[in-house]
Amino acid sequence: MKSDIQIAQETEMRNINEIANSAGLDSKYIELYGNYKAKVDYNLLEDKKDEADGKVILVTAISPTPAGEGKTTTTVGLADALRKIDKNVLVALREPSLGPVFGVKGGAAGGGYAQVVPMEDINLHFTGDMHAIGAANNLLAAMLDNHIQQGNELKIDPRRITWKRCVDMNDRQLRFITDGLGGKPNGMPREDGFDITVASEIMAILCLSDDIEDLKKRISSIIVGYSYDDEPVTAGQLNAQGAMAALLKDALKPNLVQTLEHTPAFIHGGPFANIAHGCNSVMATRMAMKMADYVVTEAGFGADLGAEKFLDIKCRMSGIKPSAVVVVATVRALKHHGGVAKADLGTENLKALEKGLPNLLQHVGNITNVYGLPAVVAINRFPTDTENELKLVEDKCRELGVNVALSEVWGKGGEGGISLAEEVVRLCEEPNDFRFSYDIDMSIEEKIRAIAQKVYHADDINILPAAAKQLAQLEKLGFGKLPICIAKTQYSFSDDPSLLGAPEGFVLTVRNLKVSAGAGFIVALTGDIMTMPGLPKRPAAEKIDVDRTGKISGLF
Amino acid sequence: MKSDIQIAQETEMRNINEIANSAGLDSKYIELYGNYKAKVDYNLLEDKKDEADGKVILVTAISPTPAGEGKTTTTVGLADALRKIDKNVLVALREPSLGPVFGVKGGAAGGGYAQVVPMEDINLHFTGDMHAIGAANNLLAAMLDNHIQQGNELKIDPRRITWKRCVDMNDRQLRFITDGLGGKPNGMPREDGFDITVASEIMAILCLSDDIEDLKKRISSIIVGYSYDDEPVTAGQLNAQGAMAALLKDALKPNLVQTLEHTPAFIHGGPFANIAHGCNSVMATRMAMKMADYVVTEAGFGADLGAEKFLDIKCRMSGIKPSAVVVVATVRALKHHGGVAKADLGTENLKALEKGLPNLLQHVGNITNVYGLPAVVAINRFPTDTENELKLVEDKCRELGVNVALSEVWGKGGEGGISLAEEVVRLCEEPNDFRFSYDIDMSIEEKIRAIAQKVYHADDINILPAAAKQLAQLEKLGFGKLPICIAKTQYSFSDDPSLLGAPEGFVLTVRNLKVSAGAGFIVALTGDIMTMPGLPKRPAAEKIDVDRTGKISGLF
Repeated sequence: MKSDIQIAQETEMRNINEIANSAGLDSKYIELYGNYKAKVDYNLLEDKKDEADGKVILVTAISPTPAGEGKTTTTVGLADALRKIDKNVLVALREPSLGPVFGVKGGAAGGGYAQVVPMEDINLHFTGDMHAIGAANNLLAAMLDNHIQQGNELKIDPRRITWKRCVDMNDRQLRFITDGLGGKPNGMPREDGFDITVASEIMAILCLSDDIEDLKKRISSIIVGYSYDDEPVTAGQLNAQGAMAALLKDALKPNLVQTLEHTPAFIHGGPFANIAHGCNSVMATRMAMKMADYVVTEAGFGADLGAEKFLDIKCRMSGIKPSAVVVVATVRALKHHGGVAKADLGTENLKALEKGLPNLLQHVGNITNVYGLPAVVAINRFPTDTENELKLVEDKCRELGVNVALSEVWGKGGEGGISLAEEVVRLCEEPNDFRFSYDIDMSIEEKIRAIAQKVYHADDINILPAAAKQLAQLEKLGFGKLPICIAKTQYSFSDDPSLLGAPEGFVLTVRNLKVSAGAGFIVALTGDIMTMPGLPKRPAAEKIDVDRTGKISGLF
Repeated sequence: MKSDIQIAQETEMRNINEIANSAGLDSKYIELYGNYKAKVDYNLLEDKKDEADGKVILVTAISPTPAGEGKTTTTVGLADALRKIDKNVLVALREPSLGPVFGVKGGAAGGGYAQVVPMEDINLHFTGDMHAIGAANNLLAAMLDNHIQQGNELKIDPRRITWKRCVDMNDRQLRFITDGLGGKPNGMPREDGFDITVASEIMAILCLSDDIEDLKKRISSIIVGYSYDDEPVTAGQLNAQGAMAALLKDALKPNLVQTLEHTPAFIHGGPFANIAHGCNSVMATRMAMKMADYVVTEAGFGADLGAEKFLDIKCRMSGIKPSAVVVVATVRALKHHGGVAKADLGTENLKALEKGLPNLLQHVGNITNVYGLPAVVAINRFPTDTENELKLVEDKCRELGVNVALSEVWGKGGEGGISLAEEVVRLCEEPNDFRFSYDIDMSIEEKIRAIAQKVYHADDINILPAAAKQLAQLEKLGFGKLPICIAKTQYSFSDDPSLLGAPEGFVLTVRNLKVSAGAGFIVALTGDIMTMPGLPKRPAAEKIDVDRTGKISGLF
């Protein structure tokens, strides 16, 4: 069996100019980064503002399991399949972080015959967006500590700084540090820490910004900490927004690449799906909508986190209205939700499969009942799936009136996704009644409860005293009318990662609340969310290599 | 008077393909980064290995002063001037770091009518090399700490780790930190610190590597720390070299841009000129030599540091032989060496000027007597210089048989450097007797003494006991035959920054010795060298901005 990188390297890519032209994009809008990557000018949106928008199809998934679901693979394959049935289509994905590339997961550009290329570049520095975000984040941190060092006019309390530095690396050593040591010339000693770059609020801001002006406005609003008088201190008060936006001016431009079958693909932005909203940039989705009749895009983790935030945060802020939702599931992952251990997932087990189905059905039910959108289940076929298993999933879905299609894009490319593509086209023609899961004018507590009860199916929420205090402060500071971004384990509908399937009778505990004032949402933390991963005993980095011609190996 | 960025933005740049073609470079070798930047393929060197090399002209300067000397400006202007007199010329410069851009200095792409463009991009992320170097540096750090965390097979002593993390930012808060705090899951607590990216050994390695294989070999040799048994631990033992080289594969390719007058320019690599060797990459210089008859390049700080390392380290390792050396001086800087305070430099002062001249003459003397190379003084004209002052410098040089030419490239571009260019062409035709200032087979102590006595004109050296112990260890480990990289204040020939002019009767004190085993040199520290700068009270960042079209302002 060929590895992903082998398949990718055997494909003859087309020049990105040709790809752009095939999408009706004039060369004047594109800036080349080599022959196979380009950035697209902001002006495209301005110039095309009166043109019609294409339909948006969101690809989401069941609650993730160690078995893997293949959401990106399905997203890419569906786009290729739509192109095969002569639709004008574009795919919009998130950018991978270097952290997982060198850690456990490997690349994040799809798999098998449904990939975006050049996968090596996409997985490594790509067009430099991640580094630009890191630099902007760290410039703000340096200006903040420098302000304290140079007299601290704003009376920033070093014990209450909330802005962390970041690095695009899995580096647990930097989670908790003390810095500013070494005496007066070397800063003010304080507790500090680093996040991985994708967890930076700058990433969330970049992905939600309409244009450079909006970007600067959002950056100015970032709260970096609090003063001794308990007042929030912002990036705007440090005069950091101009230089930070200057660092981000190119990162804000969507990146154009292609799939293995030469479907144009935007890959732009990749915020965490727990402490942030987990989907690619508004700019990329909007541009794709201007360029294509069908835009296939994905959201992070399972539908309870990724789709919820895509719909309640990204769509709300941007006005984007999706036409259909694809919920990806695999037989293996459903068996895991039915209680099967990872080692046994290759064996047929219809009982466990049936026991795991409620996870899928509850996600689908949310999309149709809570959000009023048409949905289809995509069963992403794995080589170990048996015919009996595939039939069971299809039969159960049909019994309950749930649309379902088998997807074989991993092994066959677009050809393997034609029935899914046809189903999606059909759903896009259905009238839909898209609505949010909560009203923005509700109180913070009511909004959290709405998500917990309607999307997670919790009995209720429990806001711990510390969080209740933070809630009161946030409302007092005028942040009560922001949408909510719940940081929760991705493995369960609940806040307990061990409750697989579709758990009932649980209460969602809210431990902390904070505002991402630049991104424009309240983060409700329901547990410890790791914003700086670590490397495993044998990091994937140890196997990566490059030969004298610059050809990379060991990236999978 | 127009600012640098105004002049730069008013210039119509040519497409970089056109610039490449004007230098006889086939488009197949270039990878575009937008319309005005490109990377050049390694294969060029392989394909052209049998072709003749152009002549190399090194631009260096007197000991730096707060008045500024304009070395980059002169380098760029000289290249433009050579082009004006119909020479086939290329300029090779260092890449700017973000640190000074946001700190005090502003941009580093020349000035006035002698600049490289697009200056905004060059000064900000450019083609991402700096970030790639940072990522490779920090991957090694993460793998190192992860190794300790996961059982520490190599018995690395956390107290003796020499590999630091880095960030491309002036951030004093990170100079001295403790990390790995927060208990067992979060690393091993230890003292640590960050350097600015240009101070990373990875930068020095990138600039000295012949190709990817050499890059990997050098990376493998990096010493990251010592074991409890006192054995050096290398990046190769951590299996980091493949992934690090993969991160650096594009950074290793020289970047092609243009001057305001459309002379092709390589801007590639920028190591510190104290703890490292301070000049652009060997690959860029070699490529330039294959593409042009004249290659104008520069080295950091004054000639005692920059030219010494260019000649004794870069030329020795690469086999490059320069044909002529330009020593840049300004009337203002010479007056400063003659004892005038910065505020009074605008006033004519022939006495102070004459008193400062020995600094210039000693640098020129070193080039001709120690290294056997023809030299010319370039007086970089400033608006405040008086005719009397300019005449004094010229007369004194002529009296002593020193070649001298007035350079007005800052105000006039290439047109203002024609007499300098003609002098340089003449010198390149002179036979030269290029030699190093020390023999590589001498002992470490002898090599340091040779540089101190011949280049700095010290009476002797004093190796402190701690350094003597390190020296013995380095020779025991087999590093005795490496060249020496002396880290010394740039403001004086001596190790005391207050001794301006051409001080006599001093002893150079060596405080510490360490090996940069990947770069391949011994660093001899003669004082505290700051490898992480801080921001000033009003950082330049506060004035930088970008408008809605992406146009940057406030960068100077």
